[in-house]
Amino acid sequence: MKFGGTSVGHIERIRHVAARVKRAWDAGHEIAVVVSAMSGETNRLVELCKAAHPLHDLREYDTVVSTGEQVTVGLLAIMLQSLGVEARSWLAWQLPITTSNAHGNANIETIETASLIERFASHDRQVAVLPGFQGLSPLGRVTTLGRGGSDTSAVALAAALHADRCDIYTDVDGVYTTDPRLVPNARKIDKISHEEMLEMASLGAKVLQTRSVALAMRHQVPLQVLSSFDDTPGTFIVPEEEIMEDATVTGIPFSKAEARITLSGVPDRPGSSADIFTSLGDAGINVDMIVQSQTQENGATDMTFTVTDTDMERAVALMEAKRAAIGYTSLVADDKVAKVSIVGVGMRTNSGVAQTMFTALADKGINIQVITTSEIKVSVLIGEEYLELAVRALHSAFGLDA
Amino acid sequence: MKFGGTSVGHIERIRHVAARVKRAWDAGHEIAVVVSAMSGETNRLVELCKAAHPLHDLREYDTVVSTGEQVTVGLLAIMLQSLGVEARSWLAWQLPITTSNAHGNANIETIETASLIERFASHDRQVAVLPGFQGLSPLGRVTTLGRGGSDTSAVALAAALHADRCDIYTDVDGVYTTDPRLVPNARKIDKISHEEMLEMASLGAKVLQTRSVALAMRHQVPLQVLSSFDDTPGTFIVPEEEIMEDATVTGIPFSKAEARITLSGVPDRPGSSADIFTSLGDAGINVDMIVQSQTQENGATDMTFTVTDTDMERAVALMEAKRAAIGYTSLVADDKVAKVSIVGVGMRTNSGVAQTMFTALADKGINIQVITTSEIKVSVLIGEEYLELAVRALHSAFGLDA
Repeated sequence: MKFGGTSVGHIERIRHVAARVKRAWDAGHEIAVVVSAMSGETNRLVELCKAAHPLHDLREYDTVVSTGEQVTVGLLAIMLQSLGVEARSWLAWQLPITTSNAHGNANIETIETASLIERFASHDRQVAVLPGFQGLSPLGRVTTLGRGGSDTSAVALAAALHADRCDIYTDVDGVYTTDPRLVPNARKIDKISHEEMLEMASLGAKVLQTRSVALAMRHQVPLQVLSSFDDTPGTFIVPEEEIMEDATVTGIPFSKAEARITLSGVPDRPGSSADIFTSLGDAGINVDMIVQSQTQENGATDMTFTVTDTDMERAVALMEAKRAAIGYTSLVADDKVAKVSIVGVGMRTNSGVAQTMFTALADKGINIQVITTSEIKVSVLIGEEYLELAVRALHSAFGLDA
Repeated sequence: MKFGGTSVGHIERIRHVAARVKRAWDAGHEIAVVVSAMSGETNRLVELCKAAHPLHDLREYDTVVSTGEQVTVGLLAIMLQSLGVEARSWLAWQLPITTSNAHGNANIETIETASLIERFASHDRQVAVLPGFQGLSPLGRVTTLGRGGSDTSAVALAAALHADRCDIYTDVDGVYTTDPRLVPNARKIDKISHEEMLEMASLGAKVLQTRSVALAMRHQVPLQVLSSFDDTPGTFIVPEEEIMEDATVTGIPFSKAEARITLSGVPDRPGSSADIFTSLGDAGINVDMIVQSQTQENGATDMTFTVTDTDMERAVALMEAKRAAIGYTSLVADDKVAKVSIVGVGMRTNSGVAQTMFTALADKGINIQVITTSEIKVSVLIGEEYLELAVRALHSAFGLDA
């Protein structure tokens, strides 16, 4: 059971979490609970580090920010005990949960679960309360996993314990076909495959971190995303073979945090693409969609690619600095664009899905700027002002409306 | 170098501490710094534990409250690095600092200093930044040393490192002959012996914890108490043989947190005292001063003792419950009393010190209710309303006025 920052936001919410864990314990389960810091706490600690020095040692940063989760595990253990539930907290170094040495953004390497399993057996199913987000480096120092690391901690622990399920409690009651704030007809998805969820998360659905879904897929950990505030079942994220009927399209994630850059008149010679994308990669700028136009009569081509909107200015500056080397004639950048995707494992067996998508958009007069596809998704870049219209049209076209 | 909660009260104060440590480092010293939690932080964490449950598991309490110091060590290490000083933080479990298993009030057992000493040598005198107040239990859990534990941590570390000196930075600039708020003529003491300081601390001087002074005395660690806010030298606390001229009286500590209980008509038979003091001891009530009157003709005696004012009601209730067993005729309790003491190793060689004290008090018409003495101190219990008068009179009588 994993509870995020808003679920443990203040003392009464932690008490609510304790009651929830008790119900599962009363039902006879063996339980490990992973908790985040109380909401606002990690930000407070990050700000203290920044105030100490903007370019702080990440080893010291990790020592400071990991205290947020350390407070929550102790408080939750106390409350569980007060309800008569056997419980104790474990810090990452106590198990240990070992990670890489990449402070501030470490990867979990191993989780030693022997103590937990022994205590399930010997201490009346003692509930193990663990901090998300933190680990122990090869050099014996505290590491953190980076933002959203608590979901990853929970999935990694579930995998290491060979848990029957990993329940991620959050402030929404599941994964929706698309964002209900944009499309009131959006429906909660009952069951979705790991692979679809991974696409949904990486294409803009914010309910789960991409990294934690990838880990769950690799270890085939069944997840449930559900609300910590009510008692309805959430969305189950399961291996693909457990899903009987595949809808053609399962969900429609989208993202406004996109920017498009077009270089016109790029000489079509070996190495032009490498010039562009190597320099972006070296600067740590992720390129998402790429499209190259037909070569024109003068031997030049147009190169369009997208980056996140926060990277746009840096990417433009880089391209301008490389203008002579790349040899393009003009550059256009636009961050008033959005990416809309359709995701579904059913696409593997249903042809014509992309056609349906393009027709639905064309019927509304929406121009498609860039297209990318994979086996189970199609993404298009459109003008930001058409986003709501596009998502609603696709939601209807693929029969997802409630 | 040890810095308490007000010295690291907010980010700019920690920066000030870093500058102070840098000056000592620039002067060529090898330095370990012990810090408390930012002021208010420990209270906040204690309140969270109480809100979680009033009768909380002290192992979980320690996990929670120890985070206060963990934040400070990281922040101070960052700031030292930003000033160009080699520095790293160490948590108690990383050295380790091992303690007893008495959670919430543990005693330090060992401090493994090899890593620190190695880094003094190999890393340009790398400054070690350590959290006060915390340790590692024999079962591998976080312990805390109880309130004031940071002074104890600093002294224990200085002893383990065979440090030349342990500087305790605080919000006052040294140890005074008596409280300057009561006696404006009070003088800062330049040098005081461990033994005198131990008496001063246990008799009411609040500048150092009794426990840390006892530890310094046992290991002959030279201490300095000084201000973290200005640059004047503080008070040196040193082995007695290093003090050349012993003033007869070094200081006049006092305490208002006293209460007197008198049982009249106690049958003077073997076992009456045991009845009284065993039951108080079993209830965890410390008895300080005790005086028994001459046995009267009827074979009865009066028994007077003092406890802290916060224990008075419990002590009275206990005595009333034991009235039949003890057989006393009446009980009087009074918390409007104060204890005034004179402390000085010079008393060992100067006779007539007690006489001077009693005369000075009698001259002011102050009645002495109880007296206790040891080799280097005389304490008297008086009416609380005479406290200021008594302390001023004694301060003059023993030539301590500035």
